[in-house]
Amino acid sequence: MTRIALDAMGGDNAPVEIVRGGVEAAEKLEDVKVILVGIQAQIEAELAKYPKAVETARKAGRLEVVPASEVLEMDDEPAKSVRAKKDCSINVAMRLVKDGKADAFVSAGNSGAVSASAIFNLGRIRGVHRPAIAAVLPTRRPIRPLLLLDAGANMDCHADWLVQFAIMGSVYSRAVFKRTKPLVGLLSIGTEDCKGNELSKETFPLLKEVKTIDFRGNVEGHDVFQGQTDVVVCDGFVGNVVLKTAESLAHAVGYFLKRECFRGVTRILGAMLLKGVFKSLKQQLDPDIYGGAPLLGVPGAVIITHGSSTHKAIFYAVKAGANAARNDVTGLIARDIAEYEANRKTL
Amino acid sequence: MTRIALDAMGGDNAPVEIVRGGVEAAEKLEDVKVILVGIQAQIEAELAKYPKAVETARKAGRLEVVPASEVLEMDDEPAKSVRAKKDCSINVAMRLVKDGKADAFVSAGNSGAVSASAIFNLGRIRGVHRPAIAAVLPTRRPIRPLLLLDAGANMDCHADWLVQFAIMGSVYSRAVFKRTKPLVGLLSIGTEDCKGNELSKETFPLLKEVKTIDFRGNVEGHDVFQGQTDVVVCDGFVGNVVLKTAESLAHAVGYFLKRECFRGVTRILGAMLLKGVFKSLKQQLDPDIYGGAPLLGVPGAVIITHGSSTHKAIFYAVKAGANAARNDVTGLIARDIAEYEANRKTL
Repeated sequence: MTRIALDAMGGDNAPVEIVRGGVEAAEKLEDVKVILVGIQAQIEAELAKYPKAVETARKAGRLEVVPASEVLEMDDEPAKSVRAKKDCSINVAMRLVKDGKADAFVSAGNSGAVSASAIFNLGRIRGVHRPAIAAVLPTRRPIRPLLLLDAGANMDCHADWLVQFAIMGSVYSRAVFKRTKPLVGLLSIGTEDCKGNELSKETFPLLKEVKTIDFRGNVEGHDVFQGQTDVVVCDGFVGNVVLKTAESLAHAVGYFLKRECFRGVTRILGAMLLKGVFKSLKQQLDPDIYGGAPLLGVPGAVIITHGSSTHKAIFYAVKAGANAARNDVTGLIARDIAEYEANRKTL
Repeated sequence: MTRIALDAMGGDNAPVEIVRGGVEAAEKLEDVKVILVGIQAQIEAELAKYPKAVETARKAGRLEVVPASEVLEMDDEPAKSVRAKKDCSINVAMRLVKDGKADAFVSAGNSGAVSASAIFNLGRIRGVHRPAIAAVLPTRRPIRPLLLLDAGANMDCHADWLVQFAIMGSVYSRAVFKRTKPLVGLLSIGTEDCKGNELSKETFPLLKEVKTIDFRGNVEGHDVFQGQTDVVVCDGFVGNVVLKTAESLAHAVGYFLKRECFRGVTRILGAMLLKGVFKSLKQQLDPDIYGGAPLLGVPGAVIITHGSSTHKAIFYAVKAGANAARNDVTGLIARDIAEYEANRKTL
């Protein structure tokens, strides 16, 4: 049984959607145990909404509540507050992973707070300079999501860090998305080798030397959603801006379609006939089903989902956490990072 | 009469679409003269397709051809080749501006080459550290386009440069888009003052001190398409990646809709009923009508349009060039930059 410590208090829709998603995961996912972590009374109140599913899951040992006495508020300064609030749900859940009582961690809470708690409680995988958040983006090809990292854990990066991001992203793509030979791109402003800023130009030749990745050179913003690359690396400032801009544009398109399709009877009829198209567009633009962003480089499967996560996003995030744990992402990263660093020393 | 030097040889669709757009501009825009610059025989061959419009425009002194003996190829290294090919169409057209024979310059050629030629031939406006490309993006609000700069002229930037980008973008927004009080945002990863990378954190307090702009603080990628800001500043690496990623996503959505809407009779019927919606979505996502990206900070109205520009994009770019020239963007930038730099020295 793969045990997932689920932060019941994190995110805009906590605890309602988190508990619901957790119950669904405990009910439907094979060999998964969901450990809900947070204010016990609030969690139990939510669990009471699904008496039958909860009873079945509890009997099968697939659902548990672990109390946490504190909650991080959205306006708490993330890094500081995870140190100050020792018993907040994020820390309590993270310690379950540290102590071997859970195999993976899932939260829709502040990504800065989760990253800080992970590094504070779990430390880093040996040899890893900086853990990175790998955002999972949909592409033109439905079955080929893209890992974009770092998506916001590290602002000003060194070339060495980006190289490790490429190694860690490749491991995740192979282990979890089952890409046998994930293609790695370096985000830049042109596909020519010489294009870019100081960081990307310094990173380029280093990536060419990494034996465990399949580096395909620079990729432009134009290429991101084309589905030709599996892992794209950049610093966390660029990654975060790209990620949020893309989300913003997708929302703007959705907003526009919704507004325009209800203007007049003809359009409403047309929209009804195209219901399937809009539904599948929404699904394809919806990153929820890819299961949230793993924090790579910490010794433990840590999944961060969107602050606005619904029960569905939580369900898939629990699934992603279970996948990451079962496929030993941590062990594989440790191996590939050690191999790379050993090779570098002998050069 | 505002005279526009139009590079007839630049872009994927040159000279066909460029000449067509130029003729349309000469025909329809008030008080505009179009000077087509490039290989004369090729331009004349294209002009021969529109005998009536060309004859009328020529009689009215609104269309002229200025020959250039060389053309930049796409694989030429931009900065180098504008120095090597002294008589390429970009340089010849730029010199018309320099020599006072044209009031504005328009090209769909390589943006690096245009920027290099502009700086090489025109120099910089006094006090400007670095000219910047200001991309014009559509937002949720149709009448409120956003200027994003730098969109790719300068990779690694200093805080001082970003401050000037904000000043120059505000001038353009006021002069050309007629925003009376353009709101300026600093692209970052969170709206809190303290969020960002080293560059943005250094830039933030400087922007607060600029008297000629209305600085509203950090904006996230989430805010870009919301239409709440008129000018967003960032370094040219980030700006270029954001711009191209957004284009990539918009294309992916268009591709998806096109593919799905032709699957079965019901959907085709629905798509027909929603024809107006799709058309207006396409228009709204289509940056062509905003008339290309001005290169701000050089003494002259220089407009760079997309490499894939059609005649329509060229038409609007000529219009934008005329607007920039008539509204004396150069003079206003010179004034505001001088004022800012004088204020700084007295501090």
